[in-house]
Amino acid sequence: MRRALALSLGLLLAGCASAGHAPVASAPASPTEPAKPTTALQYLYGSAEAAVAVRAVNARIADYVAERVKQRPQDSVVLAPGASMDAPRFEPCGDKPFAAVFDADETLIWNLGATRYMAERRIAFDPKIWDSWEKTGAGAAKAMPGTVEMVTALRAAGVTVIANTNRSAANAEGAEATLRAAGLGEFRHGETLFLAGDDAGGSSKDGRRSAIASKYCVIAMAGDQLGDFSQQFNDKALAPAARIALATGPAAAKLWNRGWFLFPNPVYGPWDRLGWDDLFPSDTAWEPK
Amino acid sequence: MRRALALSLGLLLAGCASAGHAPVASAPASPTEPAKPTTALQYLYGSAEAAVAVRAVNARIADYVAERVKQRPQDSVVLAPGASMDAPRFEPCGDKPFAAVFDADETLIWNLGATRYMAERRIAFDPKIWDSWEKTGAGAAKAMPGTVEMVTALRAAGVTVIANTNRSAANAEGAEATLRAAGLGEFRHGETLFLAGDDAGGSSKDGRRSAIASKYCVIAMAGDQLGDFSQQFNDKALAPAARIALATGPAAAKLWNRGWFLFPNPVYGPWDRLGWDDLFPSDTAWEPK
Repeated sequence: MRRALALSLGLLLAGCASAGHAPVASAPASPTEPAKPTTALQYLYGSAEAAVAVRAVNARIADYVAERVKQRPQDSVVLAPGASMDAPRFEPCGDKPFAAVFDADETLIWNLGATRYMAERRIAFDPKIWDSWEKTGAGAAKAMPGTVEMVTALRAAGVTVIANTNRSAANAEGAEATLRAAGLGEFRHGETLFLAGDDAGGSSKDGRRSAIASKYCVIAMAGDQLGDFSQQFNDKALAPAARIALATGPAAAKLWNRGWFLFPNPVYGPWDRLGWDDLFPSDTAWEPK
Repeated sequence: MRRALALSLGLLLAGCASAGHAPVASAPASPTEPAKPTTALQYLYGSAEAAVAVRAVNARIADYVAERVKQRPQDSVVLAPGASMDAPRFEPCGDKPFAAVFDADETLIWNLGATRYMAERRIAFDPKIWDSWEKTGAGAAKAMPGTVEMVTALRAAGVTVIANTNRSAANAEGAEATLRAAGLGEFRHGETLFLAGDDAGGSSKDGRRSAIASKYCVIAMAGDQLGDFSQQFNDKALAPAARIALATGPAAAKLWNRGWFLFPNPVYGPWDRLGWDDLFPSDTAWEPK
């Protein structure tokens, strides 16, 4: 549907109005004048459309997990160490208890407090602000739509709910408090909460995933970025088209919505350096006639 | 996952750098200097994450439709005239042939040519440019990821694929050519292609949906905006929170992913006037400590 574009593209560019569109003689916009929210912010945190999409993913996770616990699968959905997407092998389940593994930020919770604070002040991401957010944001982050219901259903089915996030291990208490205050229950560092710094892998979650899969039969994983499923997708040598091909090839296609679940997040992500030519292939060049 | 935020929020605001962040004495940015793509554009048209999400919706549509054609449902998923979401009633199927009804823009096709043309030049939406796009864009719009496969599967199952779009009836030939050039096959105005101007409803698709449901058992509908499912969601009197409540209430929740299918589109939409307080509830106010 295209009807609303007149307004939306206008707002998309509205934050830039004083850069290109205002008369040169006019006073520059005050740096303290609040920015307007981008369409990415409006869509994700405000639209009924995104609320529906997020709830649909949560409902799908709950349905899928309910089916799987009856079937007692042979394998986790965590790739075995060294296994590639082209030749996937998975951690065996044995008789390990069931778990589901979630990223935290923009997967279990929306980081509303810090996001508004930075965006409204036109502050690009500031690691000091983010560190304070990790420590003190409890209560100002919200569970995403349908997430409390989903997590509750999983636990009722006997599935341990685990978070694997790149929040800092130094701020473990803050992460626990943030998830608790969002109504998502108890996550305990080292047991059901895994953080950057827990191992030598840095921001790669592969090692933490392996540690989890050594104790649990992981029947579902969810995130907002492909690195929440395998670090292979974060290989710096992967060109954008190759990354898409890897994520949508036959092996991965079997997993999406069947063990691997992806939430929408157009606000930030590993695609943030893409340029015009990455988004728009040359054979789609067009101009008005 | 939060790791990439340093870059992404930076780029999110990058188009506005000369408004607030440049020294006041420096020359203003040239209006002809190309804008950088917003995160919404990067995510939707360039990311593997969005490609996965779009393919997952297409796969779900194909799976669902394959199930439903075996079951011969009693009712279409098109609301009966006068039926509300609170008390839904649906058009009866009788022995009508099966159809699936799709919005076109950002549902079957991505409008790459016109989107780049306008965004790169910092042109807010221009109805004259869009009119030219409707007429001449064939070849510069692409089928979305997995859409050709989905449409092909539906037709192979005996389901008529219909587009109901707010492109103009005056540009019907262009719409047909655009869908054909995208590899989506034949759509014929008045038979399998319904356009704004076909009836007196303007941009409301309700009348066109009723016309389609009078001839077909509509087993699936898909779009990127809630107006692709019912005009009730476009009621100007609906506050943002009430719109979310209507779209995620019990009646609608039964339909999402089970007859109604929603594609992600953070680039434009009916949520484009939302402000900070709509996105961020007051109880999530936060500042660094």
